[in-house]
Amino acid sequence: MDSLKDQTAIVGIGWTEFSKSSGRTEWSMATEAAVKACADAGIAPNQIDGIVRSSFDAVLQHQLVKSLGIDELTYHGEVGFGGGAPCAVATQAAMAVASGMAEYVLCFRSVNLASGQRYGVSRAGGRVGGEMAYYTPYGFLAPAQWIAMFAQRHMHEYGTTSRQLGAIAVSQRANANRNPNATMKGALTIDDHQSARIIADPLRLFDCCLNTDGCCAFIVTSAERARDLRQRPAFIMGMAMGLARNQEVVRTYNRPSMTEFPETKLTSARLFRMAGVAPGDIDVAQIYDHFTPGVLIALEDWGFCEKGQGGPFVESGAISWPDGSLPVNTHGGNLSEAYIHGFTHILEGVRQVRGASTSQVKDVELSFVASAAFVPTSALILH
Amino acid sequence: MDSLKDQTAIVGIGWTEFSKSSGRTEWSMATEAAVKACADAGIAPNQIDGIVRSSFDAVLQHQLVKSLGIDELTYHGEVGFGGGAPCAVATQAAMAVASGMAEYVLCFRSVNLASGQRYGVSRAGGRVGGEMAYYTPYGFLAPAQWIAMFAQRHMHEYGTTSRQLGAIAVSQRANANRNPNATMKGALTIDDHQSARIIADPLRLFDCCLNTDGCCAFIVTSAERARDLRQRPAFIMGMAMGLARNQEVVRTYNRPSMTEFPETKLTSARLFRMAGVAPGDIDVAQIYDHFTPGVLIALEDWGFCEKGQGGPFVESGAISWPDGSLPVNTHGGNLSEAYIHGFTHILEGVRQVRGASTSQVKDVELSFVASAAFVPTSALILH
Repeated sequence: MDSLKDQTAIVGIGWTEFSKSSGRTEWSMATEAAVKACADAGIAPNQIDGIVRSSFDAVLQHQLVKSLGIDELTYHGEVGFGGGAPCAVATQAAMAVASGMAEYVLCFRSVNLASGQRYGVSRAGGRVGGEMAYYTPYGFLAPAQWIAMFAQRHMHEYGTTSRQLGAIAVSQRANANRNPNATMKGALTIDDHQSARIIADPLRLFDCCLNTDGCCAFIVTSAERARDLRQRPAFIMGMAMGLARNQEVVRTYNRPSMTEFPETKLTSARLFRMAGVAPGDIDVAQIYDHFTPGVLIALEDWGFCEKGQGGPFVESGAISWPDGSLPVNTHGGNLSEAYIHGFTHILEGVRQVRGASTSQVKDVELSFVASAAFVPTSALILH
Repeated sequence: MDSLKDQTAIVGIGWTEFSKSSGRTEWSMATEAAVKACADAGIAPNQIDGIVRSSFDAVLQHQLVKSLGIDELTYHGEVGFGGGAPCAVATQAAMAVASGMAEYVLCFRSVNLASGQRYGVSRAGGRVGGEMAYYTPYGFLAPAQWIAMFAQRHMHEYGTTSRQLGAIAVSQRANANRNPNATMKGALTIDDHQSARIIADPLRLFDCCLNTDGCCAFIVTSAERARDLRQRPAFIMGMAMGLARNQEVVRTYNRPSMTEFPETKLTSARLFRMAGVAPGDIDVAQIYDHFTPGVLIALEDWGFCEKGQGGPFVESGAISWPDGSLPVNTHGGNLSEAYIHGFTHILEGVRQVRGASTSQVKDVELSFVASAAFVPTSALILH
């Protein structure tokens, strides 16, 4: 069989209100976002015959089969690893379409991460298994703590500064201020960033993503069917995911380097090889931003700047809209738009291909999307 | 892209000891079974570049990346819905191989279902969501109770008897008695079945599957690579999975019929269409046996006998080895070999293609495997 390059496309996107308290179930939000994604694509909800979900999601496929009135679902699948999953969810959907297992595959992520259980809150107590058995006794419990370790090491090795991390937050807030869906608005300066309280040194408040209630959904179908639908398709030109030797989930502290992530570099090589383009060809990038160092280090590992140069790169304005060479997180990202566990990045990547972003980059030919670094990661190139 | 028919094969199988108390972690067992599956196929463990798991499993892909010494994992995925998953796990692996996302995909299921948390034990207390909110207050908590409802209705509509259910248990025990891996041995007669205690009326003790500690693993690769490996490949000729309108997980009591499962019938139609064969062409079948009615009703819905005729069919000896027209669960199944959540059925389906079963059917051309009925189901045709 041929490579998956350009065999499939994202043809519909849908999302709910993003809020701090949805007052409804994840199932209800997923149904709304799915119906909107179908309307956007110009298909009926019961044309959905495949559903791929994040294994972290509260909503299961049979619930959407019921609420969408689907008569026959011929493919269902899941992807693990939380924030690393979204682009791998799209990839699995593309595989299902390309292999003829389904024609229209719904992908979604529905969360009450503000009003329900937040990822950012430490959870002690109960049974602790796996590698967390080594960390929990020391109170090393929350994602901000885990990522802070990588940031500290990057600062030590490369002289990266907190102001450089702040440049990411400031740039994304400017994008959020143009985005009507964004939940965090208002001016944010480097001084605001620098005077905000420490969450886990060196991470300050504005280095950390939001907690949000809401849902994002999108639909993958064949390139051939895509051409007859309502929207300009976002063809999936490249897709890749990966793990590498001795990788842990987020907390990989036991390899020779804590500032270079072989799984991201290997995944990047496969991604760009499939697409037949290079990082320098990318026009706009959505990069998962659980915390600002996640963007800074990912920019290096995906190949957008040299290792260790992430700080100067973001500080130079390269990632800012509209004049940067690579505008990043043009929706405002997890930091300032909403935190739907990385699915907003795929929707924004599609908007950039369509010319429909509120921070639209001119003449986009190649739109890059990356899911979380440090976890097993995944990425897409859309065009 | 072409259909997935005959593009991939299962080339290696591995399993641990099946016991009531493994005394080890699921991770340790999964590593052992994976290494054995690789040895069986004639590949090195670090040639594994994809892993698909059941989302119910305790072991995550990064753990096996570590314990198997894998340098680069290029595909990972999951399948939900427990006992309905195994053949869908194989299908997702086949998709990954056929689409070039990985070359050698490991599939596994590792459980301590005897020494750890048993599925058969009611779990009350804690937060109850979804449809279980309607059942829990009535003490309707355990799988045996849920399946008993379908069995009662089948008896009411078609005159199915407890002795007919017993014929399944008795036939499978005879197969287990020839299988050195089986954990339940010794003579089992219809009278033994009939005099055993009721678990959930009409299910008696021997209508219910075991609880087992252990792991099964298998490896999927391309048909082309398969031909150069150590074993006779089990080519995947047909694969399908499915959900249908208003389906619940196991507890679908709210549709016009409680004895006919549209998702199984639709999945059967797709499966046999892909393979280009008919149910009557199948030589041997492994059918998930959480409870004996799960086999009896599935035989009807997959198309091996007429609706309502499952009772007479199994009582006639049609499913018995060696003289039945369709020997079923030649390993002894979940009832008498071991309960590894349906993965043993795939291993036995492969053995029948290889000519390596301890209850080998002569001249097998088509080997059928079905995962659990009532949950979203899945199936394979191997040859």
